[in-house]
Amino acid sequence: MSGFVRANVAAMAGYVPGEQPKEGEAVKLNTNENPYRATEKAYDAIRAVADRGLSRYPNAVAQPFREVAAALYGVEPDWIMCGNGSDDVLTVLTRSFVGENELLRLPYPSYILYKSLAEIQGARSEEVRFDADWRLPEYFAQAPATEPNAPWRVNPLENVAADSLKLVYLPNPNSPSGTVLSVAEIEKIADSLSCPLVVDEAYADFAGFNCVELVKRKTNVAISRTMSKSYALAGLRFGFLIARPELIEQTLKVKDSYNCDGLSIAAATAALQDQDWLAETTKKIVATRERQTKRMRELGFVVPDSSANFTWNVWPDASVSHKELYEYLKRNGYLVRYMNYAGWGDGLRISVGTDEQTDACLALVERFLNGDR
Amino acid sequence: MSGFVRANVAAMAGYVPGEQPKEGEAVKLNTNENPYRATEKAYDAIRAVADRGLSRYPNAVAQPFREVAAALYGVEPDWIMCGNGSDDVLTVLTRSFVGENELLRLPYPSYILYKSLAEIQGARSEEVRFDADWRLPEYFAQAPATEPNAPWRVNPLENVAADSLKLVYLPNPNSPSGTVLSVAEIEKIADSLSCPLVVDEAYADFAGFNCVELVKRKTNVAISRTMSKSYALAGLRFGFLIARPELIEQTLKVKDSYNCDGLSIAAATAALQDQDWLAETTKKIVATRERQTKRMRELGFVVPDSSANFTWNVWPDASVSHKELYEYLKRNGYLVRYMNYAGWGDGLRISVGTDEQTDACLALVERFLNGDR
Repeated sequence: MSGFVRANVAAMAGYVPGEQPKEGEAVKLNTNENPYRATEKAYDAIRAVADRGLSRYPNAVAQPFREVAAALYGVEPDWIMCGNGSDDVLTVLTRSFVGENELLRLPYPSYILYKSLAEIQGARSEEVRFDADWRLPEYFAQAPATEPNAPWRVNPLENVAADSLKLVYLPNPNSPSGTVLSVAEIEKIADSLSCPLVVDEAYADFAGFNCVELVKRKTNVAISRTMSKSYALAGLRFGFLIARPELIEQTLKVKDSYNCDGLSIAAATAALQDQDWLAETTKKIVATRERQTKRMRELGFVVPDSSANFTWNVWPDASVSHKELYEYLKRNGYLVRYMNYAGWGDGLRISVGTDEQTDACLALVERFLNGDR
Repeated sequence: MSGFVRANVAAMAGYVPGEQPKEGEAVKLNTNENPYRATEKAYDAIRAVADRGLSRYPNAVAQPFREVAAALYGVEPDWIMCGNGSDDVLTVLTRSFVGENELLRLPYPSYILYKSLAEIQGARSEEVRFDADWRLPEYFAQAPATEPNAPWRVNPLENVAADSLKLVYLPNPNSPSGTVLSVAEIEKIADSLSCPLVVDEAYADFAGFNCVELVKRKTNVAISRTMSKSYALAGLRFGFLIARPELIEQTLKVKDSYNCDGLSIAAATAALQDQDWLAETTKKIVATRERQTKRMRELGFVVPDSSANFTWNVWPDASVSHKELYEYLKRNGYLVRYMNYAGWGDGLRISVGTDEQTDACLALVERFLNGDR
């Protein structure tokens, strides 16, 4: 039966789920989950739904969440589309904008999903390389062109029409780097593009600024958000899109009718209402992140300033193997993310844990550098 | 920004969520939800997850559910793909098999989502009309052909290549009719088709038979299931696909990485394990359905034998307006589904409620027929 599958799907590499050790087997600093427990108000909301029952279909547009989010961001509820995680939001956006053989643009290295979504659509993707300082070349905002030897080219394109570019993804803060472009830089990109620019703000709560005002001011900017990171609800699957109502109206046609379940709507709404919890938890994580950055630099790593809940750590020469350090940490019960980007290089992305977890991880890194391999 | 949307999406009719009255405002007999509360084991599982926390990502393939489902249906876990409701399963299947301008086939009238999924893909769909006895013409299993005047044609196709048919959906039991094709009839269809046949068994638990053995025997048959109807968990969003491992492997590339949340995986697994609850509840619903069918026939309606948790009710002539009866019931607190299929006709689809709900609804129908309009 696999012979019946579309050629673009058959050609994709098989999906490899991230490492998910069993509870208690390792300290997970590999997928940027929140080390703290979500607000109890979210869990209370879940228990209340369990008491009330789940025989009925949920609200099709997660209206209670839309209303709370709209008030928080100073828009109307029809500026919000809710998704089954922000992956669902990105899937719906890609299906809404990019047809077969059309072009989707993303920075490199960044979130690998954008490229996979293009592949599933049978679309083409164009990866534009960050420079060594994690800035983007002006080309990122320009019409697509065939320039195989340009320094920002990852995958040279052939026969690319100027109007084939249908969607641009820009994660801000970016992963794995944790770096940000400023709102002014993003506005400049949006001004030059003649297609939608989706700013993936999965980590924006850790950055202290966001592009919500750009969405209000520009007709081609949208923002995706997730409750997985700053709200500590990765297991819940809830994300949302902030965009102009005329776009939301289109995406509502593409999303599954009941894409958010009754439990996640209730819990996400309760979590969003607890901004005190968010402020307090984010403050703790940012403080730990700054200590982590400082210590890793003292130990000799190159670490870009992070605006997210993780840091990107690269040893300046070949004398330390990132892969070996990753394996050493794993053997000692600390799981971090080893990343190796073709044509770019490798490094370790380490999520910010509790102070205790992060300190223990940093101590292990130091022991490794001192020869305990 | 809506101007940037793909033409096939822009051309779609806006989404209209089904009527969802507030709790207690009406007895809902319009969306085939289960009138009973799901097994408490499912709710206990939800509470246990809330206690444990949701900071971490869920299992990417819902492995605990796969193992229970595999044991129940006599397959291996790699024959199961889990989805965020069976709508997600159908979305993933459509994206896996049907590219732009390719063809998807469905019976008419049946579940409207199949056609919407084709539209979102930019694909074409071919609706093949049931005959008056809710049987399908032989054409349903044949290569597509341009026969604008054939009696089963709903939407005549032009320039249709014999190899453009990529996927066929067959709901069994069907909605709105509640009728079934036998396993032997479906096997015959599968044998003739040179593309996958997806049997949508959303209501199969109410039918007393299913096509699981066909999946094992045929290389082009797959089954989609939902926990929304027979397991009374519409608010949870959990469905699954039973298919050969080589197909499952492909669909895992297309689904979102974490498409099922931690709560729904736990609750669906617990619900599936409670087969005693399923047998008992299904028995009650089937008994009520039989009484509902009998009574509606006594009152003068034409009602096909239903194998689902609803019945399809048509008055034999124009002396009774289905629309007026629908509105009368709604005014009196009973919400049923008024359906009007172009070129086919209208009728009322009435979900099976508790005995009390169904009796009260039947009494209202009788009062209406006796002139209380």
